[in-house]
Parts: sequence; structure tokens; C-alpha cells
Amino acid sequence: MLNYAPDLDRVFQALADPGRRLMVERLSRGPASVSELGRPLDMSLAAVLQHVQVLEASGLIRSYKAGRTRTCSINPVALRSAEDWIADRRSMVERRLDRLGDYLAQTADKPDPGRAAEPGEAANVHEEQ
Amino acid sequence: MLNYAPDLDRVFQALADPGRRLMVERLSRGPASVSELGRPLDMSLAAVLQHVQVLEASGLIRSYKAGRTRTCSINPVALRSAEDWIADRRSMVERRLDRLGDYLAQTADKPDPGRAAEPGEAANVHEEQ
Repeated sequence: MLNYAPDLDRVFQALADPGRRLMVERLSRGPASVSELGRPLDMSLAAVLQHVQVLEASGLIRSYKAGRTRTCSINPVALRSAEDWIADRRSMVERRLDRLGDYLAQTADKPDPGRAAEPGEAANVHEEQ
Repeated sequence: MLNYAPDLDRVFQALADPGRRLMVERLSRGPASVSELGRPLDMSLAAVLQHVQVLEASGLIRSYKAGRTRTCSINPVALRSAEDWIADRRSMVERRLDRLGDYLAQTADKPDPGRAAEPGEAANVHEEQ
């Protein structure tokens, strides 16, 4: 019944935290180490690592360790899957509202053929719905 | 330091649940009552109402009550704010990857002027970074 890819749950959950969004924003400008990601955030390295793990589990970022440094980079595919989901719904809403707008404009343009148009009639269009 | 509008937290949190995404999808096709929203979901009306409240608190939907029926409709503005946030980061990533691609293509096209180009040299381009 709920046939969405389960990772959208994790992607949106990962984006629901302002600190993690700041990390995504930083990584959209290029790869960074975990300590670089933590620098603008007022939290322990352990807390930063936990956020990195949430982001990685969601697929939004990838990381690899070289020596003692873990370097993170962004995965635009996961970012796009979330964007596409929202964009599809938003465009459906806007198309529907456009059609409603067209309908209202037509109703306002074309007075009831059964009687003569009166000045100011278009102002009643909302009450006629 | 974390200067995002706080509602993005709530919008992404609201979208992190597959049942709530199904409700958003239904509402993107037009207004619906709470019981209509709950119909495809295997949960109690109380649970459906709780999801509706999360969606409403995030700004993704609005609702009004007439008699005993609460009717919900979508708010495309909140949907667009989430979409814009993701799209801005995703396009930043893609511009950066395009520039990197251009750089790699140029490096592959132009052999080191200090020595003669050898066949298969372009294959080394990743090791030269």
C-alpha cells in the first residue's frame, strides 16, 4: 500500500535537522573531513559523527577513512530523489490551481447567457462557487 | 549560526513518514476530509488525526472544520520552500561536478607541454589529481 522507496523516509528524516542541513550545505561546496563539518556546530565530535552516520545511512553523503581522517562527500542522487518527490507533488498542485484559475477567469468573462450582464458582476464569482 | 527558518525542520520531519507522504500526495490532487485521507492507511482515525496535526503544524497542509467534517487542503508554499532548499544544494553540487568534468576533459585533451603525449595517457588523469 505504501509503495515508496524506504530511503525517502531516511532522506527527509536526515534533512529535518538544522545541523545536518548545514553539513549538507557545506558538502555541496566540496568534500570535507568530519572535523571540518563539525567546526561551525557547537557540539562534540561524537555528536558530529552521529549526524554524519545519519546522513550516510540516508544515502545523502558517502565517506571514506584514510589514516585517522574520515572524508565525506555528497551524493547528488539521493538529493535529487527527495527533490523529485516534492517537485512532482508541487507541480500537480500548481497545475490544479492553474486550472481552477482558468475556470474562474472564464466564469468571470462569460456572463450567464440567460440574463444581461450587469456592471460589477465579476465581483460575485467567488460566492457563486 | 543555524540560520534556517525553523519550519524546514518540521516540513522535512513531516515528509519523513510514508503515511504522511501518501496524505500529501492525495491532497495534491485536491482537498479531502480526514476520513478520506485515512482510507488507504491501515490505522485508527486517532492516528490519522495525529498525522494530520503534524502536517498542519509543518505548514504543508491547512484544515477547517464544518459541522463534524474536517477538510484538509495542501499549502504549495511550504512544499516549495523544501523543494527550493534541496534544489539549491543539488544545483550547487552539479555545477561543481560539471566544472570538475570540464577540468578533467581539458587535462585529457591537452598533454603536458613539457613532454610528448603518449597513447593512453588520458587514462592516468585520475592519478594526477
